[in-house]
Amino acid sequence: MDVPGNVGYTFGGRKPIAEIEPGELVRIRTRDCFNSRVQSVDDLPSKVCRWPELNPVTGPLYVRGARAGDALAVHLVDLTPAAEVGFSATFPHFGALTATEATAMLHPALDEVVWEYPIDLEQRTVRFVSRRSENGFARDLELAPMLGTIGVAPAGGEVRMSIVPGAHGGNLDSPLVCAGTTVYLPVNVDGALLAVGDGHALQGEGELCGVGVEVPMDVTLVVEVLSGVAGWPRFETDDRVGAFGIARPLEDAYRGANLRLVNDLAAFNGIDPLDAYQFVSQVNHARIGNVVDAEYTIVASIAKHHIIGAQPYYGVHRALREIGRAG
Amino acid sequence: MDVPGNVGYTFGGRKPIAEIEPGELVRIRTRDCFNSRVQSVDDLPSKVCRWPELNPVTGPLYVRGARAGDALAVHLVDLTPAAEVGFSATFPHFGALTATEATAMLHPALDEVVWEYPIDLEQRTVRFVSRRSENGFARDLELAPMLGTIGVAPAGGEVRMSIVPGAHGGNLDSPLVCAGTTVYLPVNVDGALLAVGDGHALQGEGELCGVGVEVPMDVTLVVEVLSGVAGWPRFETDDRVGAFGIARPLEDAYRGANLRLVNDLAAFNGIDPLDAYQFVSQVNHARIGNVVDAEYTIVASIAKHHIIGAQPYYGVHRALREIGRAG
Amino acid sequence: MDVPGNVGYTFGGRKPIAEIEPGELVRIRTRDCFNSRVQSVDDLPSKVCRWPELNPVTGPLYVRGARAGDALAVHLVDLTPAAEVGFSATFPHFGALTATEATAMLHPALDEVVWEYPIDLEQRTVRFVSRRSENGFARDLELAPMLGTIGVAPAGGEVRMSIVPGAHGGNLDSPLVCAGTTVYLPVNVDGALLAVGDGHALQGEGELCGVGVEVPMDVTLVVEVLSGVAGWPRFETDDRVGAFGIARPLEDAYRGANLRLVNDLAAFNGIDPLDAYQFVSQVNHARIGNVVDAEYTIVASIAKHHIIGAQPYYGVHRALREIGRAG
Amino acid sequence: MDVPGNVGYTFGGRKPIAEIEPGELVRIRTRDCFNSRVQSVDDLPSKVCRWPELNPVTGPLYVRGARAGDALAVHLVDLTPAAEVGFSATFPHFGALTATEATAMLHPALDEVVWEYPIDLEQRTVRFVSRRSENGFARDLELAPMLGTIGVAPAGGEVRMSIVPGAHGGNLDSPLVCAGTTVYLPVNVDGALLAVGDGHALQGEGELCGVGVEVPMDVTLVVEVLSGVAGWPRFETDDRVGAFGIARPLEDAYRGANLRLVNDLAAFNGIDPLDAYQFVSQVNHARIGNVVDAEYTIVASIAKHHIIGAQPYYGVHRALREIGRAG
Repeated sequence: MDVPGNVGYTFGGRKPIAEIEPGELVRIRTRDCFNSRVQSVDDLPSKVCRWPELNPVTGPLYVRGARAGDALAVHLVDLTPAAEVGFSATFPHFGALTATEATAMLHPALDEVVWEYPIDLEQRTVRFVSRRSENGFARDLELAPMLGTIGVAPAGGEVRMSIVPGAHGGNLDSPLVCAGTTVYLPVNVDGALLAVGDGHALQGEGELCGVGVEVPMDVTLVVEVLSGVAGWPRFETDDRVGAFGIARPLEDAYRGANLRLVNDLAAFNGIDPLDAYQFVSQVNHARIGNVVDAEYTIVASIAKHHIIGAQPYYGVHRALREIGRAG
Repeated sequence: MDVPGNVGYTFGGRKPIAEIEPGELVRIRTRDCFNSRVQSVDDLPSKVCRWPELNPVTGPLYVRGARAGDALAVHLVDLTPAAEVGFSATFPHFGALTATEATAMLHPALDEVVWEYPIDLEQRTVRFVSRRSENGFARDLELAPMLGTIGVAPAGGEVRMSIVPGAHGGNLDSPLVCAGTTVYLPVNVDGALLAVGDGHALQGEGELCGVGVEVPMDVTLVVEVLSGVAGWPRFETDDRVGAFGIARPLEDAYRGANLRLVNDLAAFNGIDPLDAYQFVSQVNHARIGNVVDAEYTIVASIAKHHIIGAQPYYGVHRALREIGRAG
Repeated sequence: MDVPGNVGYTFGGRKPIAEIEPGELVRIRTRDCFNSRVQSVDDLPSKVCRWPELNPVTGPLYVRGARAGDALAVHLVDLTPAAEVGFSATFPHFGALTATEATAMLHPALDEVVWEYPIDLEQRTVRFVSRRSENGFARDLELAPMLGTIGVAPAGGEVRMSIVPGAHGGNLDSPLVCAGTTVYLPVNVDGALLAVGDGHALQGEGELCGVGVEVPMDVTLVVEVLSGVAGWPRFETDDRVGAFGIARPLEDAYRGANLRLVNDLAAFNGIDPLDAYQFVSQVNHARIGNVVDAEYTIVASIAKHHIIGAQPYYGVHRALREIGRAG
Repeated sequence: MDVPGNVGYTFGGRKPIAEIEPGELVRIRTRDCFNSRVQSVDDLPSKVCRWPELNPVTGPLYVRGARAGDALAVHLVDLTPAAEVGFSATFPHFGALTATEATAMLHPALDEVVWEYPIDLEQRTVRFVSRRSENGFARDLELAPMLGTIGVAPAGGEVRMSIVPGAHGGNLDSPLVCAGTTVYLPVNVDGALLAVGDGHALQGEGELCGVGVEVPMDVTLVVEVLSGVAGWPRFETDDRVGAFGIARPLEDAYRGANLRLVNDLAAFNGIDPLDAYQFVSQVNHARIGNVVDAEYTIVASIAKHHIIGAQPYYGVHRALREIGRAG
């Protein structure tokens, strides 16, 4: 089904805009994080954007059959930028190499600058063009679309701004959340209330300046509901399986991601947790998502060929991928 | 030349064991971090190792022509495990998923367990074998030799234990320090006083349990001396160039690595630092080295094809690689 | 007025239970953080408490005349424990000297133990009695009642669990929030929607084990509404004025509290921010509230006799204190 | 005895300048952290100081009878500023509210400014005088002399710059290290090799801007050697006993200080560690030393009247205080 483009700025606290079925291909067009208000390099985000109308998410979608206590598998079938240009920026007092509201200092903000990135879907490139360099500098970069924000209604009756990551998912800002990935989220309320947004045509590891190459995105996804699977944000692709760590300081994100991976591996393979700890220590990836948001994110993962026997999570990733390919 | 195997437990404070020439192939055999005292799974490190005789480094080597203020390029030509087995372990109160001396808690230590990893140099594998799992679990893993420890005499007259990372290099514990990599280090005293050790047949991202697959290593390296290059640990391969961040908490390691990369790119390409900040934000890798040592490490890097014109660092990486290939 | 005891478990998302007038003495009885379910040392919190029904707050109270954008001054006139005993506990995987959900490790939880503290309002003491020590250990400690949780509806349409601290106040867990203190909070929605709870008969600096001496509390407070005052949690007593820092890691709480104090002092005294920075550097207190909650807290303050001329915040603290004394 | 003023810039790696006896009153004049190079507000530290000749420490002193494995009690009898003015400054990229080498950012340094503080030993005041405020601002502040740096030769053969804190003591920068305090340090080498420096006429909690009111200091101290006492920096006054935490991030300093205090209390009183944990949670102070140096510091302490029976550490504090009073 094609989902209408209704957006909001929170996870939780809003009524569903549509209902979706597990196994059904869902097509959504998301707005960019600037809510379409940046249209040229002269549109400074701090001037044209109105807090809290930042980082709009499309949804929420009520998933039929999802009950509180389940887990929701969201498989991203396709992500295609829905504009000819993306924008990035230095936003005042936001980013990893600047004083921020949280890491508060006496420095005035860095200069606010907007960069426009032409996108070529045929060539699969986004083009960086310098703004302040005397002799200029431009580079065609490989397009690598991802979704910065994917989440559900939080637990405990909370409502969180869409710009915040947490146990409900939200603004995870990990480049690993791209086409081909399945993200597992907790179901905290009936229907899960899934929403997505914050497409990036490209983003480095950590989202250093706090802003990816922001772009509206045509998202094709398909979901499934799992019972009896622990509902913390987890991660699977054809090749790898893992978990998110979502915390500050960054070592706590590292700890959380890896502890979940260790415990998952112990459960998958029926082995002792210390054996799993040792094994993960030698073979894990631990890839940084963001080091700029209210909570930092890391994805820890291992190759799936280390899982004995059955597919993890009942093979739901494979099943959803097949639906995506057939669709 | 073949360097004698004299080891020590500090960077700084020791006399050179040999002199080496820039451009000369140097062959060193390093001991493992346990100083050869773990020879079976029954040798618990906390029992058989004697502090501070941990993490022996071979050297120091006096580099002819290196003057305080220069930078030292150390190119790793080859790393070959020099034993048929490697060992890993859970060391009491050391690692990322346990209370430690620094992250102090009331928990007793996790059980101390040693794992023995058979190494097959022909097949290029190391074999994990579970120790505590009822039904067992074993896996042949791809051999990926690296050097945990590479450093020089520290600045300011300091002497640091070889187990500590810092501005002088030392126990960086990054899987990216492998054959084919050039590490740049500051020269703080005449002769630089290079030492290396702590070979790992394999290590995951972050060295989760605090211990890689520890193994003596046959190291072939070649060095060059650079004047006028800022002497913080930096990183180069055929494809990528970058910098280390070495700090706690982990976000500060991320900041340091990326700030150096941003400033380096601005200098390499003659562009504005904010343009470099934006560019790095979209294309960087930021790979975690260790989250267990006295300082955590991250390597931030970008692809070298983004560097305009000349090779970075006067092309020393390429020149050293050619020497290695010819050797 | 006497406020009915209706409680909830969130800031935001709930309807007011009463309206209050600025300048009016308000009497509230709060429940303890265990929601009265711990009545003896045999009632283990993890067994008798039901998440998310933890840390109940009484309210919210609609403050007449408070408009979004104002600040709310809440002066605590009196805090009197409303029970003959308080309880504390080690709660599984919660506290500063244990692995937690956020600082995730492989350790099993510390033993869960409950301590009962008899309270003597005449003698102004709470009595510690050991639970596990062979020869016993008991001590009469000075009663020092405080409110762990004081907050308003969050900004941005958020709803936060009452156990979480943030820009809206919430579970600040600072021993400085005691009788005689005025806490300033932002008004994010009309009426502010003030709620309070989590009384402690006593708490150390940092709330080390995660739990104070928890007790229902008779709270007498009086509020005032201020226009044109920045709405971040601030702090004032007869002698001192300051600001809260609320962040992880703890140095960011330190930074935030002190930056606000520096900027406030610069504004109060009409001096240059660098002069204020220097001055605060030599005379500030920076007292740790909690090092256990979702965000850590620190209060930075200076003596009020360093403020030139007029009382800070239009003298509202003094005015409210007089109402309290008269009442 | 009066110790000659020989200074150095490291702990470890230097020969003793004098030998002292336990129980002997020792008089030392320390230089200020600028090594006397700042003599007016026009002497910018970054211009007049030469790295690494910063933070000179007087010593080391060989303590007769101190053997590796012992602990050294250093009681500060008197601290009297030895100059008519002290100086403070904003040092480029150093301090808690600025980007630093460790917390690396793109911001240029804050302006470098020097403040001169006239000292009145009769009135016991230091006078702040603004430098950049149009209408001026001056305040007489209470003199509160302390020693920023107190340490011994490090363990493991290390040599550390005097500006770095660590397990050997060093640049702890805690306002609690003042006259009347006994600091306990590990003895890592025979003679301990004590050195002191970095007097502050006054310093706030955290040394916010990175620099106290720096002043040469006349130090009177007396030492004792203890066998069988764990050699981590600990703290005692007439009223309180506690331990230092020395780590980054700041919560790890909090953890380390409190874990040591909990374990000490359990040992002093012969009680269960969980009882001690609970008790400390309700009564501890946790006072921030510095949030600016290579490691942050916190002192956790409790009132000594909670110690059952004998004085802690064999009553050495009381004995040394008596010597000081008699002297």
